[in-house]
Amino acid sequence: NSKLKIFSLNSNKELAEQIAEQVGLPLGKSSVTHFSDGEIQINIEESIRGCDVFIVQSTSQPVNENLMELLIMIDAVKRASARTVNVVIPYYGYARQDRKARSREPITAKLVANLLETAGATRVVVLDLHAPQIQGFFDILIDHLVAVPLLSDHFLNDSNIDLENVIIVSPDHGGVTRARKMADRLKAPIAIIDKRRPRPNVAEVMNIVGNVEGKTAIIIDDIIDTAGTISIAASALIESGAKEVYACCTHPVLSGPAVQRIQDSVIKELVVTNSIALPDEKKIDKIKQLTVAPLLAETIIRVHEQKSVSTLFD
Amino acid sequence: NSKLKIFSLNSNKELAEQIAEQVGLPLGKSSVTHFSDGEIQINIEESIRGCDVFIVQSTSQPVNENLMELLIMIDAVKRASARTVNVVIPYYGYARQDRKARSREPITAKLVANLLETAGATRVVVLDLHAPQIQGFFDILIDHLVAVPLLSDHFLNDSNIDLENVIIVSPDHGGVTRARKMADRLKAPIAIIDKRRPRPNVAEVMNIVGNVEGKTAIIIDDIIDTAGTISIAASALIESGAKEVYACCTHPVLSGPAVQRIQDSVIKELVVTNSIALPDEKKIDKIKQLTVAPLLAETIIRVHEQKSVSTLFD
Ligand SMILES: Nc1ncnc2c1ncn2[C@@H]1O[C@H](COP(=O)(O)O)[C@@H](O)[C@H]1O
Ligand SMILES: Nc1ncnc2c1ncn2[C@@H]1O[C@H](COP(=O)(O)O)[C@@H](O)[C@H]1O
Repeated sequence: NSKLKIFSLNSNKELAEQIAEQVGLPLGKSSVTHFSDGEIQINIEESIRGCDVFIVQSTSQPVNENLMELLIMIDAVKRASARTVNVVIPYYGYARQDRKARSREPITAKLVANLLETAGATRVVVLDLHAPQIQGFFDILIDHLVAVPLLSDHFLNDSNIDLENVIIVSPDHGGVTRARKMADRLKAPIAIIDKRRPRPNVAEVMNIVGNVEGKTAIIIDDIIDTAGTISIAASALIESGAKEVYACCTHPVLSGPAVQRIQDSVIKELVVTNSIALPDEKKIDKIKQLTVAPLLAETIIRVHEQKSVSTLFD
Repeated sequence: NSKLKIFSLNSNKELAEQIAEQVGLPLGKSSVTHFSDGEIQINIEESIRGCDVFIVQSTSQPVNENLMELLIMIDAVKRASARTVNVVIPYYGYARQDRKARSREPITAKLVANLLETAGATRVVVLDLHAPQIQGFFDILIDHLVAVPLLSDHFLNDSNIDLENVIIVSPDHGGVTRARKMADRLKAPIAIIDKRRPRPNVAEVMNIVGNVEGKTAIIIDDIIDTAGTISIAASALIESGAKEVYACCTHPVLSGPAVQRIQDSVIKELVVTNSIALPDEKKIDKIKQLTVAPLLAETIIRVHEQKSVSTLFD
């Protein structure tokens, strides 16, 4: 029975520490520094021979730096005779580059999958991929966890909303399945925001499919990046008669003007997970962060003990 | 007969432009930008179907950013039905991480070779790898060019040194072969700097093997990074009676205190190539930059025309 070791890289140390604590182990000793010219230098400071190694790293901003840290760490772990090299990627960067939308585009989400395999990963644990099809980009084992239960439980147990009066809103057509899953848990109806451009060069209109009048609307998305869509969607919901608007997502990318937009929007509260660490300047009262550490810790234990993780997927 | 196209990425646009001019072609149209969250977005703006594509990119600082640009571009070029995907990497970053010097270290130079192949490169052109063995890290074709002829020709033709009175100096044991090649071209003797630490925790001493008294010493190295060794070596040469000291290298990494150290050193002139672009603040009078564009252009033409490039290797 081989030993379990968990290592953290630099993207999300707090989450990695929480995971290790939940599992009941100290984090593995390693250092990730830079040479004078910016090249990454990794040292693993304890034996991992024959171990099941789990490396925790989100490929969030700075994405290229974090991805290279991960690839180099995988190489080092592999060459140090680990039995298995498992990478836990709570936020999988480049997931939106998952198809050729135009000619001569890369498919970077597939490239990244290939790079992880080439470096030597033997199994990947991810959370809410932008498209579930990205699972098929991997030839190695992949566990695809979802945050809908965690987000739903927050609204069911830890918020003051009137649960009899909720409607779950998908901000686009792509997210309807996710909204449906949350609606089932909250025993609520759903609505869909149907964005369209009436004529070329005319502003998009947000048409709401479903009756939100007098309701507490909860918008659910996988990624909130610049927060443009979500803040406009929230206003459209209020204009259509919603009483109040909450929002939630798995991955708070929150780039550029996002935090200011959330602050200025009619959204009462934005609930996110810690798949991406928020720097202090993004921690505003309106944004509530839930931890995915128990979910990831449970997954790590089950993978290590060779038990099924499928009950964690829904 | 398929068409030749040359694309530049962001590390070294000036060199890429010089190469394209030498080849007699405009650079291929493409844009490399960033999404709001820092992810790289690449667009190739002309058809490359069936073409021999050459991508020019040094993996110099910021190394991880430049490497990811290159990998994503390779993916895009491959998926755009190019006939061949050739990558011209004048400076190959991570080359010094080419072996396990200590336990549990990565071998990042090998990882990078694998990543380039996985992304879809079909041939690689490099210049003065830190260790020539890195050629063997690739399963695809690799052309390994050297800058000794270019650097030697500069001292032979474009400098005012007394050619009768020169000695070529290797700053360490690993560089003796390179120094020997330059010495052959300048018909000069060689000396070697033999660094050693007399006892633990005592400063290294620079012992000079060879007689430099009254000579014009030219130190040759492949990479000058923080310039610590080279400036101390230059002082040691003067203390041992050298009349004056020049230095040259292929790759001016020049990180951290390097430029200040060169400025403050006894080195009269440092001759480098443009394998790495120098930002304005590193362009000081003492540093002379030679272009490798003719060498790389000639290589590209010969590879495209399926002619031998081996005469360019020495
Ligand atoms: N990092 C990114 N930020 C914003 N847009 C992106 C990013 N990566 C890819 N995209 C674009 O987002 C689109 C995919 O989004 P979606 O339709 O939601 O799957 C593609 O057309 C991509 O060009
Ligand atoms: N980017 C870097 N900057 C400084 N030292 C490095 C770098 N990459 C690797 N090294 C170290 O340099 C040594 C190899 O240099 P060398 O002996 O000249 O081949 C190895 O022990 C590495 O740990």
